[in-house]
Order: sequence, then structure tokens, then C-alpha cells
Amino acid sequence: MLKTKMDETPGKRGPRGARGDVAAAIVSAARTQFSAHGYSGTTLSAIAAAAKVDPALIAYYFKNKRGLLEVCLEPPSGLAENVVASSGSPIESRGRALLETMLRQWENPEFAEVFRSIILIAAQEEIAMKRLRGMFASVILGGMAAGLDEDARELRAGLVSSQIIGVAMARYVWKLEPMASLSPGQVVDYISPTLQRYVDGNF
Amino acid sequence: MLKTKMDETPGKRGPRGARGDVAAAIVSAARTQFSAHGYSGTTLSAIAAAAKVDPALIAYYFKNKRGLLEVCLEPPSGLAENVVASSGSPIESRGRALLETMLRQWENPEFAEVFRSIILIAAQEEIAMKRLRGMFASVILGGMAAGLDEDARELRAGLVSSQIIGVAMARYVWKLEPMASLSPGQVVDYISPTLQRYVDGNF
Repeated sequence: MLKTKMDETPGKRGPRGARGDVAAAIVSAARTQFSAHGYSGTTLSAIAAAAKVDPALIAYYFKNKRGLLEVCLEPPSGLAENVVASSGSPIESRGRALLETMLRQWENPEFAEVFRSIILIAAQEEIAMKRLRGMFASVILGGMAAGLDEDARELRAGLVSSQIIGVAMARYVWKLEPMASLSPGQVVDYISPTLQRYVDGNF
Repeated sequence: MLKTKMDETPGKRGPRGARGDVAAAIVSAARTQFSAHGYSGTTLSAIAAAAKVDPALIAYYFKNKRGLLEVCLEPPSGLAENVVASSGSPIESRGRALLETMLRQWENPEFAEVFRSIILIAAQEEIAMKRLRGMFASVILGGMAAGLDEDARELRAGLVSSQIIGVAMARYVWKLEPMASLSPGQVVDYISPTLQRYVDGNF
């Protein structure tokens, strides 16, 4: 979904094999470094050292720091596609379908860590915030789209986002109790009616 | 509400006068430094330099870095009291009362900046996260308390928190549109029914 160096050169980074492993190690190290020290406070050589790779490999895979940042802000593969697929569910249960899709991703601890790093980086860097804003808006809007009146679609997507972001923050980032300990099914039961009201309720 | 060095020595920092100004300058500089570099990545001398004060003054006002962190995580004065006062409103409109109280605080740009720094610091430091968690839980729980059955009170407060945190993130931290541009009255109209369902709805 994001246009990056990697999108322009498909096949350069494979999901498997030595190349994919190196790129993944760089991204993982970069997320940690950007989260801890901010974008401007992080150098490519510090990322290379943390990833235990030659700094030249960062340039090879990601072109520059900006290119690497964009990849760090990318959601785990499949998220956007899965969320957008929720828009295929009947409108009267779309709130629940959206939430179930998001929860399936978040319950993966690796994703939760990525989500946390994205929030941190975005809160520190306007450049990252803009990227995240666009991504979030298009994912949620994509997940809600079909069958909604054009006028209210963005407002409805914004309201849905406000509840979804809050659940993610409370449960996975802040780990507020009892939100953190509810089963995924309980979260869906308690929160879905809210999302459904935002999707097709009368305001 | 937080127990800090300052609570133990009331009067040491006044809201007005040279002493209060110096302490406020230190806290403001510390919030910026902690947000940008994390708790462990920030030194007292860097904070002193940013605040343009002698490092000895930090020890004088805040004892140590931990003491200063705790003050940085404190919500702006009056927030807790105002939110808890919402619990005095009739239960059938308590969702709206809570949200109106929170929005009044957030619409102050200074508070929005403090809120952003608290989120950042907390996301980076477990110590800060714990503090924030306790504070948030007690403030929201305090604002919801009266007239609710004991059993569901914490769950209801957690659900309320999940929506309130999400509105704050979407509107004031991420500035997602159209959430960021709604009038406070529109936010109250769209979101209050959700909060009210969490306060007294049937699950």
C-alpha cells in the first residue's frame, strides 16, 4: 500500500532467504531505535550496529533513512487487505467484522510490538505522523466503504477509528485493566455495538 | 493526587513567583527531553541546560530524576478533580458529563501538549506506564463511581477509558480528520451515547 523503494523493485526483498532476513533485521532494529531516540536522533550507523549488518546494506535495501522510516511505518503484511475485506461483510454486522479483523492481528505479540513502535515514532515525528494518518484513514475507510452514503463516510470512519485506536492503546500499549485481560470475544461483544452505531447509526 | 517530593513539602513550589516559574520551566524542559530521548536517555544536566537553570535546582525542587518524572506524568492541575466531579451528575447523563469535562481540558493547547508528552514517555518507560495506568484508572473510575454496581464498575470504567483515549489520540495527538476538525459540541454529540452505554448499558 505504501509506495517505497521496495515497491519499485519487487523481488529485491523476499519474505524468505538471506536477503529477506537481513532486511527484516534492519527494519526491526530501526523500529527499536526510532522508538527510543526519535527519527532525528537515530543514525543509520546505530541501526546497522543494532542489526549487526554493514551500513551499506541499509542503503542497498532502503536507499536512505527516509526510505527505512517508511517501511517501519508500514503495517504488518496482510493487515490492510484483511481490513478492507471486512467491507465485504453485510453492513449490519460490519462493526463486528472490522473489530474481529483488527483483534486477530493485535493478538499476535509481534504485531502489538510493531503497533507500539509505530505510535511512538509517529508521536515524535511529523513526517511519520502524516504517513500514519494517511495509512490509517485509508485502511479504515477501505474497511467501511461499501454501501455507505458518501457524505458521512469519512465522519463514520473517523468515529470508528477513535474507538479502535482507543481499544488498541488501552489493551495493547498501556495494558489498562480490565481491558488488557478480557478475552478477544469479550472485547468484540462489548465494543462492536459502538462500532456498529458509528457505521450505520443515526446521528 | 500523585505522591511526590512536592506533596511532602507543600509551599516549596508556588504557582506564582520566581520559585514556581523555575520549577515550571524545569518540568516543561523535562517533558520535552523525556519525550524525545526516553527516560533513560535523558540526563538531568541536559534538562537543566534546556531549562536554562543550574542543575542543583532540579535536585532542590524534585530530589532526583525519578521525582521529576513523576511530576511530568501528573495531569494538569484540576483535571482529576473536575473528572471526579462528573460523578456527581445524574447517572443517565454521566457519559456526556465526563466527555464534556475531558474536552474542556483538551481544548487547551498547553494541556494537549502535556497529554502528548505523557503518552510518549509512558510508551517508552514501564515505570511511567505503571504510573499513568494507575492515575488514569483512578481518575476515570472516580468520575464514574456513584450509583454503579460494584461488580461491573471497573469494566465499565475500562470501556469508557478505551473510547476517551481513542478520541484524545485521534483528535489531539494524531490529528486524524475529520475528528480533529469537529467542534467540541459535535464530538460530544457523536461520542456521548457510546460512553453512556458503557456507563449504564446492558451487556
